[in-house]
Amino acid sequence: MANVGDVARRAGVSIATVSRVLNGTAVVAEDTRERVLKAAADLYYTPNRAARNLRAGRSNTVAFAVSDIEQSEVAAIAKYLQPTLQTIGLDCILYSLAHSGDRLMRLLREAEQFGVSAVVIVSPDLADEGELAGHAARLAGLGIRVIAVNNDRSHLGIASVLHDDVAATALSVGHLIANGRVPVAYLGRHAGSRAGQARRQGYVTALQAAGLPVDPDLTWDFAYRSAAGYEAVDRALARGLAFAAIQCGSDELAMGAIAALQDHRIRVPEDVAVVGFSNSPWAMYLRPALTTLSSSPQHLALAVRDLLSGQGEMPLRTLIRRDFLRRSSA
Amino acid sequence: MANVGDVARRAGVSIATVSRVLNGTAVVAEDTRERVLKAAADLYYTPNRAARNLRAGRSNTVAFAVSDIEQSEVAAIAKYLQPTLQTIGLDCILYSLAHSGDRLMRLLREAEQFGVSAVVIVSPDLADEGELAGHAARLAGLGIRVIAVNNDRSHLGIASVLHDDVAATALSVGHLIANGRVPVAYLGRHAGSRAGQARRQGYVTALQAAGLPVDPDLTWDFAYRSAAGYEAVDRALARGLAFAAIQCGSDELAMGAIAALQDHRIRVPEDVAVVGFSNSPWAMYLRPALTTLSSSPQHLALAVRDLLSGQGEMPLRTLIRRDFLRRSSA
Repeated sequence: MANVGDVARRAGVSIATVSRVLNGTAVVAEDTRERVLKAAADLYYTPNRAARNLRAGRSNTVAFAVSDIEQSEVAAIAKYLQPTLQTIGLDCILYSLAHSGDRLMRLLREAEQFGVSAVVIVSPDLADEGELAGHAARLAGLGIRVIAVNNDRSHLGIASVLHDDVAATALSVGHLIANGRVPVAYLGRHAGSRAGQARRQGYVTALQAAGLPVDPDLTWDFAYRSAAGYEAVDRALARGLAFAAIQCGSDELAMGAIAALQDHRIRVPEDVAVVGFSNSPWAMYLRPALTTLSSSPQHLALAVRDLLSGQGEMPLRTLIRRDFLRRSSA
Repeated sequence: MANVGDVARRAGVSIATVSRVLNGTAVVAEDTRERVLKAAADLYYTPNRAARNLRAGRSNTVAFAVSDIEQSEVAAIAKYLQPTLQTIGLDCILYSLAHSGDRLMRLLREAEQFGVSAVVIVSPDLADEGELAGHAARLAGLGIRVIAVNNDRSHLGIASVLHDDVAATALSVGHLIANGRVPVAYLGRHAGSRAGQARRQGYVTALQAAGLPVDPDLTWDFAYRSAAGYEAVDRALARGLAFAAIQCGSDELAMGAIAALQDHRIRVPEDVAVVGFSNSPWAMYLRPALTTLSSSPQHLALAVRDLLSGQGEMPLRTLIRRDFLRRSSA
């Protein structure tokens, strides 16, 4: 475990300066302060006071902040996280953000009053990155860990545990292209969502690898619900757009897309192939059974546990593979 | 608002006895103690100490304890509850019970340490009723309200806000019978689940009202997942059971049931009608579109808000109607 000297060395300041910053006992130049907080976060430095409190069992509660609990992958992570963290003596409370950046910042600002020992964020929503990084560093200084799940915030110094959505979408779209299912449309939220942007990036990567153009008319930015999937495909067909496959950003979107195709007497998969995302518990019970990308909520939960139990190396980014689950819809 | 004299009158004891019980300052006979706690709970009596704390804003947090956050109706309630309670200055944390009665009792036992002002329970699981009633009464004495949502615990003196599942299932099964879709099978969890028992009771009520027998072979006790729905119908067909309709206890079960029927080349709704339960966001995008019973998570949330804001009459039980949503599957 890092000590105050390690933080000072990394930040290039004296131990007294580190102490002044972390205790807030004196005014320190802003850039110095930020360097110290960044170094403390990088090293997962825990001041003795907070460490003492944690050892004394003052808080064994982890706040699990979620943007939208109605999304099946988020609910699945919540479900696995609680019993997994229980094995290391931590309890878990859920905090619904309802896609509100203000609520997230408030939770981070008040985490110490809440008495939590860690904050686990599962939100694809874009947030003010400077503010987020600042809170994470400040809380790290208090021994309160901030971890991002299913979204990459590692560039902010926040330990991130996520599926490799870029690789997953590239794998799936690559399959579609290899089977001659072109052009491929992409349907999913991307403006305002980091995870959505990663999925769209995988789609673009696969097209470019195959030397295919990226057609803006075939990239549909919609929320993750079935209703949005139906509407997106219904509109595309009304516009006379032609496509042989749809890569969706969620299984719910895929269900809505399939319904719209069937209502237009377009057969799935014969005329248009459809791929979902993240293998909802019901995906294999759709007819046609939904081809999708796997989800490993239990592995995400185990990785969070490893980070919180503080054993061994602390990776800043843990990537978990999604597999292509071929069923009948593509 | 009730005062200590009201509690004493209702319990048939002296004010001094009420005070001794609620402050735990002296030994009181067990049956007297229970009578006092019951009276305090019935009257929603809030001792001044707790009232003072609450007024001082000591706690504005409601613990929302859920059995299974992966169930879509539970997730929807969680989603509506947070912004609804925010309008009266309350924040909401979710606490996953993972179907564990021990976790529920621990939460109730430690609610005051948790610093919550109320506990909202959304769990169909059967629990030790004496223990549950005891905790609710004790917490009421501390000014911490316990409310049950989507399950009836009013017989324990716990204010309950729920859909009228008995009436809903009776309505739906009545429709099936009136359309000649007999015999009707019932597929849903009921052993171990209060809500499940209510749904099954509605099914029995409708059969009896029509003078039809209740065939134990056509009552399938399965968990609420699609996989269970598939397995239940697959097994029933393997046993050669004959039925013209299936009333399901969840939309997920209905999706699995429809997949199994289609895989056996049985047409829905021509050969067998299928009805879901609680109108998941995706239900209308199944093909055939799923006939189901409506869900009003926003009304449940408003009723909880009314109970917690303490305006006007405090009903011990609030019943919210489910409508029959006729689509294509029945």
